[in-house]
Amino acid sequence: MSQVERIGVSLEEELLSKFDKLIAKQGYQSRSEAIRDLVRQQLSDMQVGDPKAKAVAAVTLVYDHHSTKLMEKITSLQHSHLLQTISAMHIHLGEHDCLEIIVLRGRVGEIKKTAENIISIKGVKLGRINFVTMEQHND
Amino acid sequence: MSQVERIGVSLEEELLSKFDKLIAKQGYQSRSEAIRDLVRQQLSDMQVGDPKAKAVAAVTLVYDHHSTKLMEKITSLQHSHLLQTISAMHIHLGEHDCLEIIVLRGRVGEIKKTAENIISIKGVKLGRINFVTMEQHND
Amino acid sequence: MSQVERIGVSLEEELLSKFDKLIAKQGYQSRSEAIRDLVRQQLSDMQVGDPKAKAVAAVTLVYDHHSTKLMEKITSLQHSHLLQTISAMHIHLGEHDCLEIIVLRGRVGEIKKTAENIISIKGVKLGRINFVTMEQHND
Amino acid sequence: MSQVERIGVSLEEELLSKFDKLIAKQGYQSRSEAIRDLVRQQLSDMQVGDPKAKAVAAVTLVYDHHSTKLMEKITSLQHSHLLQTISAMHIHLGEHDCLEIIVLRGRVGEIKKTAENIISIKGVKLGRINFVTMEQHND
Repeated sequence: MSQVERIGVSLEEELLSKFDKLIAKQGYQSRSEAIRDLVRQQLSDMQVGDPKAKAVAAVTLVYDHHSTKLMEKITSLQHSHLLQTISAMHIHLGEHDCLEIIVLRGRVGEIKKTAENIISIKGVKLGRINFVTMEQHND
Repeated sequence: MSQVERIGVSLEEELLSKFDKLIAKQGYQSRSEAIRDLVRQQLSDMQVGDPKAKAVAAVTLVYDHHSTKLMEKITSLQHSHLLQTISAMHIHLGEHDCLEIIVLRGRVGEIKKTAENIISIKGVKLGRINFVTMEQHND
Repeated sequence: MSQVERIGVSLEEELLSKFDKLIAKQGYQSRSEAIRDLVRQQLSDMQVGDPKAKAVAAVTLVYDHHSTKLMEKITSLQHSHLLQTISAMHIHLGEHDCLEIIVLRGRVGEIKKTAENIISIKGVKLGRINFVTMEQHND
Repeated sequence: MSQVERIGVSLEEELLSKFDKLIAKQGYQSRSEAIRDLVRQQLSDMQVGDPKAKAVAAVTLVYDHHSTKLMEKITSLQHSHLLQTISAMHIHLGEHDCLEIIVLRGRVGEIKKTAENIISIKGVKLGRINFVTMEQHND
């Protein structure tokens, strides 16, 4: 497990007092924990801009399961040889609509392309890509 | 099932030609399908701004499963009487880290508050809320 | 001027080393400066969710200046008695298109409503709201 | 000026009725205008992902104008030979803070790098990049 280091950060009193109020409201127990989350979020956001970075992503879809052959198409697209589908979750939202969350591992650029291909299928009503970029888990 | 209506839309030739190129690249079979997706996305984005709108959301977490009692805390937070946890998916990312995706149903404001409380727990390394607002499924 | 306080933050070695690489690439001279910027950004993002928070925002528009009476409409919308237009900048982008950046001061909710009204005018081709929420300047 | 084309779009009655309510609230006079704005927004969002696309961007900064030599640094960074600073607007927000909006023209990648370098300067408290990608104006 990774060693923990302690660094010093200087902040204006006023900025610190606002930050303390915000993180208390969000439920943080310590400033360190809140700042670690900001740092991780920032690293993750920056990596997503690099098409070659390795990532895990959750692709969220809402679709009409009555659409002909939609499920086969979605499944076949996940079988790109450049991507690995780790897992998928399927939820019935109503009479027609399903929510499907597919967790993919691969390069950012490849994940984006595959997700766009899935989202553009007729019958897919809503689609989002949610990156969880953490390269250390992908090598 | 909902009736389909046909409307006319005027666009500058140049704008249309760029849009056609983009949606071909994304894999859309028709302009109607691409425009329907833009319309749904816009409706979903706007609803998320309203704390009282009913929504389904996927909360994505990365956390260290060795952290003491983290899983119990996450589970207990999902048992808010104002929210319904529809489903949860758990994936091992590596030796220490887990990816958990929790699908919640409830008011936008309540989902945000619960998700913030989960994300702020020590040991949760990354957290995102991904709304899939579709009020018709939540009444 | 606000007093400066110094706090200690604990981070895993691996996370810190990635953060150091990122901020060196971005041009930061110190970790404190980079973390202060993350904290300010987070505070600003959270305030934008509160319609009653006081804010300064830059509204960026691209529009065709040949559209009839567009400029009068944009100007009249800025004269809401609930908002103060601090300044506006106008740039010619080409034969037809202008870029206009309007800096408004007021409540977040009121700024959003006014900006939406401007963006929805026929002839306005692109519009974005960019919040610079800093309540201390607005009381 | 660009020719106008008329296309037909099919939408479910229920989706159309929600869209009509939303755009009426936003102040749109017609569906065509609202859909054109969605199409332009989507094209602009996609182009921003391409570092080589030509763009115009507004960089918004809040900084303490008492910081030593900050203004000279910001000015010198704008004089990259790969970018053209079209215009800049300066607004006093309070005793210490200034809002500066700089409009730059150049490649998306170069604009991002320059903006990051400016945002990372000590004394710059908040910075955002706001793309207005419209390649036809940049050749």
